[in-house]
Amino acid sequence: MTGMIVLESLQKVKPAQSIGLVETRYFTFASFPDELILDSGEKLGPITLAYETYGRINAERSNAILILHALSGDAHVAGFHIGDEKPGWWDEMIGPGKAFDTDKYYVICSNVLGGCKGSTGPSSINPATNRPYGLDFPTITIKDMVKAQKYLIDNLGIEKLLCVVGGSMGGMQALQWAASYPEMVRSVIPIATTLKHSSQQIAFNEVGRQAIMADPDWNGGNYYSGVPPSKGLAVARMIGHITYMSDTSMSEKFGRRIKDGKIQSRFGAEFEVERYLHYHGDNFVKRFDANSYLYITKALDYFDLSNGKTLFEVFKGIRAKFLIMAFKSDWLYPTYQSKEILKICKQAEIEATYCEINSTYGHDAFLLEIEEETHLVKHFLKRVFNGYAVKI
Amino acid sequence: MTGMIVLESLQKVKPAQSIGLVETRYFTFASFPDELILDSGEKLGPITLAYETYGRINAERSNAILILHALSGDAHVAGFHIGDEKPGWWDEMIGPGKAFDTDKYYVICSNVLGGCKGSTGPSSINPATNRPYGLDFPTITIKDMVKAQKYLIDNLGIEKLLCVVGGSMGGMQALQWAASYPEMVRSVIPIATTLKHSSQQIAFNEVGRQAIMADPDWNGGNYYSGVPPSKGLAVARMIGHITYMSDTSMSEKFGRRIKDGKIQSRFGAEFEVERYLHYHGDNFVKRFDANSYLYITKALDYFDLSNGKTLFEVFKGIRAKFLIMAFKSDWLYPTYQSKEILKICKQAEIEATYCEINSTYGHDAFLLEIEEETHLVKHFLKRVFNGYAVKI
Repeated sequence: MTGMIVLESLQKVKPAQSIGLVETRYFTFASFPDELILDSGEKLGPITLAYETYGRINAERSNAILILHALSGDAHVAGFHIGDEKPGWWDEMIGPGKAFDTDKYYVICSNVLGGCKGSTGPSSINPATNRPYGLDFPTITIKDMVKAQKYLIDNLGIEKLLCVVGGSMGGMQALQWAASYPEMVRSVIPIATTLKHSSQQIAFNEVGRQAIMADPDWNGGNYYSGVPPSKGLAVARMIGHITYMSDTSMSEKFGRRIKDGKIQSRFGAEFEVERYLHYHGDNFVKRFDANSYLYITKALDYFDLSNGKTLFEVFKGIRAKFLIMAFKSDWLYPTYQSKEILKICKQAEIEATYCEINSTYGHDAFLLEIEEETHLVKHFLKRVFNGYAVKI
Repeated sequence: MTGMIVLESLQKVKPAQSIGLVETRYFTFASFPDELILDSGEKLGPITLAYETYGRINAERSNAILILHALSGDAHVAGFHIGDEKPGWWDEMIGPGKAFDTDKYYVICSNVLGGCKGSTGPSSINPATNRPYGLDFPTITIKDMVKAQKYLIDNLGIEKLLCVVGGSMGGMQALQWAASYPEMVRSVIPIATTLKHSSQQIAFNEVGRQAIMADPDWNGGNYYSGVPPSKGLAVARMIGHITYMSDTSMSEKFGRRIKDGKIQSRFGAEFEVERYLHYHGDNFVKRFDANSYLYITKALDYFDLSNGKTLFEVFKGIRAKFLIMAFKSDWLYPTYQSKEILKICKQAEIEATYCEINSTYGHDAFLLEIEEETHLVKHFLKRVFNGYAVKI
């Protein structure tokens, strides 16, 4: 009896582990003349998607989860690449014993179409010219990103995804998956996201784009053989960073502290918050392509799941279960936008749960509120997975 | 009897009138060697302040009201300059029968030190070099702006101001007036403002500054004989504009409407909100100096009324009455910051009223919620003015 209790409590405290070393793989499709027809009517091909997978597909091929990344994310969502000190961007959520438990589930994440982390985007070579696309890259939408991901999922031999999940732009892709391919999606976890971009959301993105295009090094998007528009991209990233935090989290983190306690040079970074923004702005330009920033933010701004129909028409065909999460202090994707997702689910008689997490981290909370998210996701996935026998 | 009623109702509906044609005047002081010693310890002189006055000073010199402007404002707060189609920036509040009734009060407004609308600022000629100051202009603070204004008020022969009033940065100056010269201030109306700039407020300003300084035309602040950094300044203004509106007011004004209903060229302005931001950004660069933007936003960021003391020490000497106004949807200067002003007033036993106006206009509300403001200001000023006999 005592032994059993010890065993049970040991199991409970068994620490979640790192998934360890992982590798990015590449899948290429839609080669000429079978190019992908995009939302805009333009064609694109061949298309390569960078992706990673963790865990194993089960015999029924019923345990696949697709993680969708946000604006600046990539396919490397968990584990370590050889030589890396830091793990993937949502490592705390993915691995043995974690929310997305790789002992149970097969987890997939791919870099979006238009990105710059291995998937085809404006910095890729245009086969028609043998030079980087630049602005010859076609306009892409969230729907196009999802369409490209479907080729990958098909190629992996998966007919139904147990779950599509993502925060921010990842949440929009998750919603689009359920709308575009309802027969392939058993559950959706849209986090800190929206059914459509609002004026304010468009406005913040547009200012970021203007900052990039105001940089003479941008050169009409044609900078791959020269100097990239680092200053403009850094400004865009700094704007983004402010919107990802909350007034409270900034005050708690920085207050009005001045570096070394005294006023420095004219217009140098004095306040700690300024140094933080500079640091993250400067780092971003080392790892991100300015044209990808333009294309992807535009995809965000175009996003409107209703897409000419009524929302009810879009949702009435969906049979997936929803776990909708939002964060109280998130003013970039305010909670009312997540409540709108809940509302249309209810109207369409979709089983949906809405969880508002009382975080002060602002929009960044979706990357930081691991404990709350783990609790909610674990429970939700278990329920969906165990109900798999029920035909959708 | 009937005649009297008609007369009374006629008086009630008597429309508030425009103050008509007005002129900007200039006051110069602090000539070498009697330069003004600034907060930073640096010296500056001669200093010119552009200012306007409306109404007449009364025999007791007890009816003077000083209006303080916000970041991009100027001395021209009401009436028309010859040839102008648009009146001053707060015309609806100032004039015969209006909130600041020029039939009763003598209204003064001056362009801030560091500005570019007639007062000495970085675009002024440095007498030491005979060229524009540029970055040789010294660091200025809100306290310095107020110190310079005091020379003007002294010169106008006014010993006590009936009221100091302003929104946003104007509110900070109003608070600083009460703190720096308590014996000269009978009442304070701080609107949509704060006792100190928060991390988030600093962050937004810093991104604006970075956008300006990233523009190669900025050239270290030395652009007066060449091309000004218009693109950088426009980006800074666009960031500002987003923070002045609310999510709600943007959605109501623009929604997701696209110009001509169809997607235009790559990364051109398509959404109405984008066109609005471009329009206002482009207009701003025609009327504002980029270096002034740097210096004034830095003055905002340095602003902390406590200035090394406790707030109680600062407020205990103040005898003015306070009317504090804030707006529910203002997320740039959130209502909690105005409540902090109320709190310290109460602790220091200062007579203070706090009014939270239920507006959806965001920070811009201080320029737009004329009816509510008029009601509150009229009543408050009447009470302060009529109590003038009481020695402060």
